[in-house]
Amino acid sequence: MTSRLSLHRRHLLAGSASALAAAGLGTWSSHAAAQAKPLPSYAAWKDANSVIVHSSSTIETRRSAFGTSVITPADQLYVRNNLPAPPASVLDNRDAWQVSIEGVRNPRTLTLGELKTMGLETVATVLQCSGNGRGFFPHKPSGTPWTVGAAGCVVWSGVPVRSVVEALGGVAGDTLVYMTGTGGEVLPEGVPVDSVLVERSVPLKAMGDALLAWEMNGAPLSLAHGGPVRLVVPGYNGVNNIKYVKRLAFTPTESTAKIMQHGYRMSPLGGKADPTQASVLEMNVKSWINSPHPESGTLKAGQMQIHGVAFSGTTPVTKVEVSVDGGKTWHAAHFVGPDLGRFAWRQFALHVKIPAGNYVMVSRATDAAGNVQPEHRLENQSGYSNNSWADHGVKVTVA
Amino acid sequence: MTSRLSLHRRHLLAGSASALAAAGLGTWSSHAAAQAKPLPSYAAWKDANSVIVHSSSTIETRRSAFGTSVITPADQLYVRNNLPAPPASVLDNRDAWQVSIEGVRNPRTLTLGELKTMGLETVATVLQCSGNGRGFFPHKPSGTPWTVGAAGCVVWSGVPVRSVVEALGGVAGDTLVYMTGTGGEVLPEGVPVDSVLVERSVPLKAMGDALLAWEMNGAPLSLAHGGPVRLVVPGYNGVNNIKYVKRLAFTPTESTAKIMQHGYRMSPLGGKADPTQASVLEMNVKSWINSPHPESGTLKAGQMQIHGVAFSGTTPVTKVEVSVDGGKTWHAAHFVGPDLGRFAWRQFALHVKIPAGNYVMVSRATDAAGNVQPEHRLENQSGYSNNSWADHGVKVTVA
Repeated sequence: MTSRLSLHRRHLLAGSASALAAAGLGTWSSHAAAQAKPLPSYAAWKDANSVIVHSSSTIETRRSAFGTSVITPADQLYVRNNLPAPPASVLDNRDAWQVSIEGVRNPRTLTLGELKTMGLETVATVLQCSGNGRGFFPHKPSGTPWTVGAAGCVVWSGVPVRSVVEALGGVAGDTLVYMTGTGGEVLPEGVPVDSVLVERSVPLKAMGDALLAWEMNGAPLSLAHGGPVRLVVPGYNGVNNIKYVKRLAFTPTESTAKIMQHGYRMSPLGGKADPTQASVLEMNVKSWINSPHPESGTLKAGQMQIHGVAFSGTTPVTKVEVSVDGGKTWHAAHFVGPDLGRFAWRQFALHVKIPAGNYVMVSRATDAAGNVQPEHRLENQSGYSNNSWADHGVKVTVA
Repeated sequence: MTSRLSLHRRHLLAGSASALAAAGLGTWSSHAAAQAKPLPSYAAWKDANSVIVHSSSTIETRRSAFGTSVITPADQLYVRNNLPAPPASVLDNRDAWQVSIEGVRNPRTLTLGELKTMGLETVATVLQCSGNGRGFFPHKPSGTPWTVGAAGCVVWSGVPVRSVVEALGGVAGDTLVYMTGTGGEVLPEGVPVDSVLVERSVPLKAMGDALLAWEMNGAPLSLAHGGPVRLVVPGYNGVNNIKYVKRLAFTPTESTAKIMQHGYRMSPLGGKADPTQASVLEMNVKSWINSPHPESGTLKAGQMQIHGVAFSGTTPVTKVEVSVDGGKTWHAAHFVGPDLGRFAWRQFALHVKIPAGNYVMVSRATDAAGNVQPEHRLENQSGYSNNSWADHGVKVTVA
């Protein structure tokens, strides 16, 4: 092992690419411990070998389980619930589930059965928790220390929100500049509703791509992922994709719920969250290597396929570069497999010949708008939106 | 119900579109009976509610289970095995599985671990048993009476066969005009090898698209679907996609195995199979409606989304038309969702207003080469390659 790779965690704030990469690797041991927890009952159908159970409401896909087939299978997809899921009985009669559409000229409560007659669209999106990569922040933010596995690429089917809105006469006025979704979880009693309600507002422009989705990856939407119906906002961080959506409203202001006002804000290190700070909305440009991965063990010298995933909010990724020396030199990777559209991730691969040695492999994505994945994370108190290429590096030993 | 819809099976050979559609509907009762069988152990992980178990080696996706998300989830995908699967222990060390590459300048036996270093490609394909639609043949061919569910669209990852061949010096001569794959099943004893061996030859041109695949839909390939490694020949009928492939050879003649010489031949009605008849190779242009489906029950008059799937061997589909009057008048459907490439199926949808009444809904696909899905099936003794739009119709009652 080179001295570069044996840097201790206390050196991490120095900020060099390879040190940061090594930092990420330091978190794997905590994962191994977390893995021992059992799957919660509402997600008991997940593939236990492919996931890390952090808690009953936080389940991460193992980096080693991400394949190269673009789509993340439902039984490997991460779970992050802000409240316990509603009782499974809500799936007994899916089509009876009701969604109140408000802030349109003709507001109405529509059943899922009615929504299914109003339009059909299918879209592949990256679903990613805004805390994905939090495990690489050296200040150890509170919250789940996800590394790369609070993300997946899945296919949704549902009715376009714009079709529903059009059928109900359009948005009721120019002042309604937010699309606000409310979750149908059962709220704990004895606390103010706003302190627990899962309700998020996104800019009205997100309506154009949004779906009320009842299907994921070809199957009726599971309870774990928001069935019977979920608000899907392509390109936006996971929390904006409201599960069990019971209300979709066009509003003049952001939701007053705590999860909107103080949750998911980009607060400065050591600072407190407040509504003037940026909220986690569109995802940023990001990529990481899935193979080799930290559990690959010692690899054989010779030919190797380095592969991973790359995406960028609502913009297609156009380029991925890979470095095997921690970011000193870069090689153009190629995209592999079908392009599922601008909200999906692309698989990338680099075919290389690798002699014996120790390597830090990193990847760096560029999107069509010219955004380049940065070397360093944007520091913030809660550990959101980490797209540092250095943090996501993989240490590899080849013999 | 109109008199058109109450036609008895004995009228089916009359060949009118609506009569043929009604014929298909007559077979659902036999499915309900088959559904009671338990899943075999190697496929116990399948979703029992989404499939019809015909036998331990033949499992069909329910028409009602096909969603609109393009990809068929692994746990809903049909299974058709010509021999029992090898013992599950072949998956204990996937990378140790060996494939003998023959008919190249430098023939070699490669492990799956070695194949994984030689290239990477991901492709979505329709996987369809050539007997899919056999249940609609009125002469009741021997074999499983599949209706629409011996098909799915899945994503494969593996190494391109052309990359392996190139690495081994290329095909060893112009006379080697077939690509022959051999399955690694354990053969029954006491019978000639050729009588049971799963070995199929396809024209050399198929090599350009073929993969040696170790992953399906983002997960390591299951035993039920041919893991650790399967020969995937995009656009070709299922039987040519050799599971547990142990030998890939470039050969001057077709395999002498019975499954090639006499199996899967387009024999005339009442005739015997022989090697001069056409083999089931590339799939033909086809579509069918998945919703409404025969189990939809009585539908409510008003707005409706009619949707289904369309594909055509190695050629993209360019158009799907839908008729609600058994083929008298047609309406242009639109494609829904991402295009996963020319080997994948497309979802189509038609948004219509339907008053009360009885309907026969059918769909008709056209591909980029100008092939149009025909009204009538090509009659053949074993019931292969049924792409009749009339046969695949759905009878719908709206009140």
